[in-house]
Amino acid sequence: MIDWQSRYSQRAALVTDNVLGEVLRQSQNTDIIGFSGGLPAGELFPVDRFREAADVVLRTSGKQALQYSSTEGYSPLRSLVASYLVRFGVPVHESNVLITTGSQQAMDLVGRLFLDPGDRIALESPTYVGAVKAFRIYQPEFRIVENDGDGISIDHLSKVLETDPKLIYVLPNFQNPTGITLSLARREQLVNLANTHDVAVVEDDPYSQLRYEGEFIPPLIALDPSIKNGQVSTLYRGNVVYHGTFSKLLAPGLRVGWVIAPTDVIQHLAALKQTVDLHTSTFAQMLAYEVAKDEFLEQHVLRLRSVYRTRRDVMLKALEEHFPVEATWSKPKGGLFVWVELPSYIDTNIILNEATAKNVSFVPGASFFPNGGGSNFLRLTFSFAKPDRIEEGIKRLGAIIKDHIKDSSQ
Amino acid sequence: MIDWQSRYSQRAALVTDNVLGEVLRQSQNTDIIGFSGGLPAGELFPVDRFREAADVVLRTSGKQALQYSSTEGYSPLRSLVASYLVRFGVPVHESNVLITTGSQQAMDLVGRLFLDPGDRIALESPTYVGAVKAFRIYQPEFRIVENDGDGISIDHLSKVLETDPKLIYVLPNFQNPTGITLSLARREQLVNLANTHDVAVVEDDPYSQLRYEGEFIPPLIALDPSIKNGQVSTLYRGNVVYHGTFSKLLAPGLRVGWVIAPTDVIQHLAALKQTVDLHTSTFAQMLAYEVAKDEFLEQHVLRLRSVYRTRRDVMLKALEEHFPVEATWSKPKGGLFVWVELPSYIDTNIILNEATAKNVSFVPGASFFPNGGGSNFLRLTFSFAKPDRIEEGIKRLGAIIKDHIKDSSQ
Repeated sequence: MIDWQSRYSQRAALVTDNVLGEVLRQSQNTDIIGFSGGLPAGELFPVDRFREAADVVLRTSGKQALQYSSTEGYSPLRSLVASYLVRFGVPVHESNVLITTGSQQAMDLVGRLFLDPGDRIALESPTYVGAVKAFRIYQPEFRIVENDGDGISIDHLSKVLETDPKLIYVLPNFQNPTGITLSLARREQLVNLANTHDVAVVEDDPYSQLRYEGEFIPPLIALDPSIKNGQVSTLYRGNVVYHGTFSKLLAPGLRVGWVIAPTDVIQHLAALKQTVDLHTSTFAQMLAYEVAKDEFLEQHVLRLRSVYRTRRDVMLKALEEHFPVEATWSKPKGGLFVWVELPSYIDTNIILNEATAKNVSFVPGASFFPNGGGSNFLRLTFSFAKPDRIEEGIKRLGAIIKDHIKDSSQ
Repeated sequence: MIDWQSRYSQRAALVTDNVLGEVLRQSQNTDIIGFSGGLPAGELFPVDRFREAADVVLRTSGKQALQYSSTEGYSPLRSLVASYLVRFGVPVHESNVLITTGSQQAMDLVGRLFLDPGDRIALESPTYVGAVKAFRIYQPEFRIVENDGDGISIDHLSKVLETDPKLIYVLPNFQNPTGITLSLARREQLVNLANTHDVAVVEDDPYSQLRYEGEFIPPLIALDPSIKNGQVSTLYRGNVVYHGTFSKLLAPGLRVGWVIAPTDVIQHLAALKQTVDLHTSTFAQMLAYEVAKDEFLEQHVLRLRSVYRTRRDVMLKALEEHFPVEATWSKPKGGLFVWVELPSYIDTNIILNEATAKNVSFVPGASFFPNGGGSNFLRLTFSFAKPDRIEEGIKRLGAIIKDHIKDSSQ
């Protein structure tokens, strides 16, 4: 019998944990109070709109929807996606858009296009575990940039840029997992710094539409100096590679995301995408377009904001009530997550084992630290569970955590 | 302005041609008589069955279909796919199946799991260009195994195996591009040889159901010595990693394919798939299952066989009529392709330029030769165009080629 283990590549050993697999598996278990995955609320999916759209697409364009299509994506969808940034004055067009099989694929393709072994990526710690896992396959060095309540530190980034990283990876809005939003001043500084150093910025933006309070802040790609200088007669040529997705706004089960970038970058990403899956499902793309068009998406987002705002408030209130005083947590103005810090002697992997036994899930914080650490943190998703379940889940979790708090009076 | 070219990885330079991109783009141009891509006939897509299935899935399971799901795939679909091999006595189960975003992703994941730079892959030349492109990213050496009318040469394979390749990649049925089918005797020899040498076999099998004459031959995975020795009480533990897809049988626009392999291999492939796209579209998987189930796929395949058999016959007859005597071509018993050899002084890339001007497309042969050569070959797809268009397209192509034939009497 073949010894498979001996046949695997060195690369296979780079995927050591299965945190995303656990998260995805838990998403299918309805008994569990799910605070783990960044899942949208299933009961808010616009199922009737999807039914109607699926029927229209198959009835009027069945032959096209079920056939192979171009790697770059369905043309009307590419235009629609471009229009989302045109609103902010970014001079982009269909040719600046690549449709990807979810935003996760955008991470993989960016790693594939830019990273040779030993190349450096500047990023925050903690940051999105899926991005770190996608990049890690290409064997870069992660250079951590400090952050605070206003997001990534520009002073520290400036120092890290002296190591000549290939990419800066940043989630400016309601960062995963911390919920922190990068201030406008820092966004402008970041883009200018990237331009000065000729370094590409990967702006990962799944959550910007999910803001529950405060003012909208323009994306990094809209703050590019070339645009601000009024050089908008030609297509976008700045340093930012922007990732967006329908996963949090419409339905993650479609696996439809996108990259917006200069056309040269899009063409190279598309050439690599061909080797990976030829193209994203034609039907899923046409369906997403048919559902999102005619401002439906914008209307739907209003409903999401209202429901998620309530769930965030319920979770924050329950945390106040049930968590020990030794715990602290973020108060996010948007997105899906609350980020909790426990005393340093607590290991949230151990808490998770006990929580699972009580049918409550979350993601232990250590997963989000590219270079290790963070074992006393945990991430809680407030978008998925209904308010009474959130209340109940936080109560159970609080009781477990309190059992681990050392009595400081002893 | 950033100099993007200087920022790309060395890997990006490995994707040099855009043959798949051209093929996919042409698939959207209805003016062209399309002999290029391996496209199914759009008018045979069971659109009504898809409409009904889409409505059933969204009406009864909308929340599930639009949500994230597990990386391994939709459980009923994995079981259905496993049953396709259980029929041939292969002891597989859901846990031996990974659903992929089309068969192209299976190639990429296999490359990702097995190939370190400099590793060797034994394969035929010519062979499927998409597999070569997927593997090339992982920088292997391609070791060519000779083939003849019965498929890959076992004697030569035996010599190539002395170089200790990580993988043997083979398309046993109606090979792409040659249309050749590996004989039963050679299949048994190949699997035995692979077992002796402890080397994994990647069996790429998109076309086996599209047989228009002759007897069905069992897949390599069903010929594994462990199965033949009756050790079927446990799940499959042989050397074959099997790739299948709905692209040629139902609809490529879904992007739903699969890998069947020992569970250890499936788990490792799934861990890597997580980094690439988290999972294949939940809705596309549920839709594929709903369409394929209750023996619908088997009934539908009967119809495909009948239509494609006619188109093959029309193409072969038109070739006899319109192509010069200096040309020779395969007479495939199944699949989608006829493989044409022209005199060695003809470059089919030049023929393609002239054909494109006459609205006829095909794929020049050179694309299919991993280590170069083959510029006087071309691949013709007979499944996509209707009979009268096939007749017309071959007539136009024959006239162009005849203009390039040197008069041997001069």
